[in-house]
Amino acid sequence: MNYCSHCGSAQLISKIPDGDHISRIVCDACKTIHYQNPKIVAGCLPIWEDKILLCKRAIQPRYGLWTLPAGFMENNETVEQAAARETWEESEANIELLNLYTVISLPHISQVYMMFRAKLLDLTFGPGIESLDVKLFTKDEIPWENIAFTTIHRTLTHYFQDSTSGEFPLHLSMINNKNRLE
Amino acid sequence: MNYCSHCGSAQLISKIPDGDHISRIVCDACKTIHYQNPKIVAGCLPIWEDKILLCKRAIQPRYGLWTLPAGFMENNETVEQAAARETWEESEANIELLNLYTVISLPHISQVYMMFRAKLLDLTFGPGIESLDVKLFTKDEIPWENIAFTTIHRTLTHYFQDSTSGEFPLHLSMINNKNRLE
Repeated sequence: MNYCSHCGSAQLISKIPDGDHISRIVCDACKTIHYQNPKIVAGCLPIWEDKILLCKRAIQPRYGLWTLPAGFMENNETVEQAAARETWEESEANIELLNLYTVISLPHISQVYMMFRAKLLDLTFGPGIESLDVKLFTKDEIPWENIAFTTIHRTLTHYFQDSTSGEFPLHLSMINNKNRLE
Repeated sequence: MNYCSHCGSAQLISKIPDGDHISRIVCDACKTIHYQNPKIVAGCLPIWEDKILLCKRAIQPRYGLWTLPAGFMENNETVEQAAARETWEESEANIELLNLYTVISLPHISQVYMMFRAKLLDLTFGPGIESLDVKLFTKDEIPWENIAFTTIHRTLTHYFQDSTSGEFPLHLSMINNKNRLE
């Protein structure tokens, strides 16, 4: 941010506003406080029998690596709508959301992942514009060394661990720049 | 937004960028796309025996009405940290988070509430700067007609309904401008 989006001034300063406790970007000309907040990444883990649907990324970051369908939640949608929309955009898969399965905070990049378990309804999926390929993998076939994000690796790991009991409770956790894989 | 925060130009237009599917605010001068995303409101339901801690709001909106401690999640924190911080700021209560209890999307205002059940650890609470009063209420004492937000009303309702079974699963839901109370 170089200019105030309200008045156009370049007189942006960092200060703790009165009654606040965190340093904000404040316009010294018009006094507008520019709040910045974390983003939600919504997506799902599409299940077909003993297989999971993964997408090979056609975009940066992590071009060519594999991921679960997920992306930034947009204004004016629900978390569930965001997860289903991202799934469609990246994999053209028809799914039914089951339960909210992993919620993972990434404070170092101010993101919160919200991943659902989902039932893949048919086999008509294919790569959307952001994917090079979309395929089903059993646990042993999953390219564990080529998963794009720690959040996705963790969600997949929880799933296969929980599959032994058949219970899939919500997993709430965090990843910071000290314990991420990449 | 009146000016581009990147280059200071007033030439902001609404358009669907190439490869996108949603109209964005785009700077026609420097081509920066200004994404806008939903905000997370994190908070908790502090429990002491058969009572719940509520805060009487000292700020707008809904000045003077009662709420559970909650507020906008900040950058560089986890959802759990945000819930505990907001609880401290509004009620000076010492709590231990139990489980993520309600996740409520409000697409008409682009917010997602994430409310935890929490154990109140002692009775040293008091009004923070954003509260006029902080008090414990049994189910029958709760000022049901003077609860500040539909999300909070719903979270309280789930809690007392679930208390009969002693099971407190995650409740995922949405509120839009058609079914909100106020």
